[in-house]
Amino acid sequence: MAIVDITVIPVGTGTPSVSEYVAEIQRVFHKYEGRVKYQLTPMSTLIEGDIPLLLEVVQEIHEVPFQKGIKRVCTNIRIDDRRDKENTMERKLQSVQDKL
Amino acid sequence: MAIVDITVIPVGTGTPSVSEYVAEIQRVFHKYEGRVKYQLTPMSTLIEGDIPLLLEVVQEIHEVPFQKGIKRVCTNIRIDDRRDKENTMERKLQSVQDKL
Amino acid sequence: MAIVDITVIPVGTGTPSVSEYVAEIQRVFHKYEGRVKYQLTPMSTLIEGDIPLLLEVVQEIHEVPFQKGIKRVCTNIRIDDRRDKENTMERKLQSVQDKL
Amino acid sequence: MAIVDITVIPVGTGTPSVSEYVAEIQRVFHKYEGRVKYQLTPMSTLIEGDIPLLLEVVQEIHEVPFQKGIKRVCTNIRIDDRRDKENTMERKLQSVQDKL
Repeated sequence: MAIVDITVIPVGTGTPSVSEYVAEIQRVFHKYEGRVKYQLTPMSTLIEGDIPLLLEVVQEIHEVPFQKGIKRVCTNIRIDDRRDKENTMERKLQSVQDKL
Repeated sequence: MAIVDITVIPVGTGTPSVSEYVAEIQRVFHKYEGRVKYQLTPMSTLIEGDIPLLLEVVQEIHEVPFQKGIKRVCTNIRIDDRRDKENTMERKLQSVQDKL
Repeated sequence: MAIVDITVIPVGTGTPSVSEYVAEIQRVFHKYEGRVKYQLTPMSTLIEGDIPLLLEVVQEIHEVPFQKGIKRVCTNIRIDDRRDKENTMERKLQSVQDKL
Repeated sequence: MAIVDITVIPVGTGTPSVSEYVAEIQRVFHKYEGRVKYQLTPMSTLIEGDIPLLLEVVQEIHEVPFQKGIKRVCTNIRIDDRRDKENTMERKLQSVQDKL
């Protein structure tokens, strides 16, 4: 199980606000309901699932600003993939809190 | 006002678990209580404040694994700095939710 | 045409050196000879091509440390995707140098 | 000795091209001539030196688009800091090539 942390920056918007693109991206997840878990943070969107499916979601999210007429998109992705034990968003937070 | 999203990876730990380092990093924030706002997510730590202070915190966090004997650290930082209006973690989330 | 900038960090190696994994990753590209252009920098590997193929390569590269027995891998990816004009590694560098 | 890999994205430019900002950033390095080593790649700028100085350079580079009237800047930084042996850009590349 892996967690992907993704942020998509539309370039050439003409305005500093990008929240309309981020909102549109959240709608992509309705399509994947029940197949991936996701969470919006103030800096990115976190997605939990298996790598092949997560990369499919990444590709779809990356396309969103293009569909809205943007000509350049810079996407940044962090993958945390652990295979010796269950690697969920909930468990990772718990593991840190247990040590505080 | 800027937001920094930071993740610190100790290299050469001998074990896949890194939560003890993440917990230690959370303790750094006690020192900055009231000067920076911070939030732990399953993938990183978010910090809100002015850039010079945030980079001071970044440097201190980056040192944590070295203090625990690690010889190599890979740190990844995203900065979101907006100067035409108040750019807080709370406001960014709200701005997306208003558009859903 | 897009450019992907990828760095793969094996976690739990027991040693700070990771060059054997980076070397193994370079071998993955032999398989994609003629289909993607790639370049090794001191900090990452750059790959040029179309997004679906690049994400296929990303997935394969990300698997390399697992094949060598590592249990956790942290991969970081930046995608620069521009669709109003040809976006190649060579052209990007040239475009900056023209302005110096 | 550490290596920093930095990319600065101006948000709200009105055009997909950002090379004028990247060119301006290269000029910042003239000021640090002899104190940091740097290298432009098609995806980012690499800087080699000690962490406190590198973070000073990071802050200065991050300011460049604001000085040109941009209201929001997204900066992405990777730090690779190794303290058991000399960690230079040249040596890292050599270490991979020796294993090919």
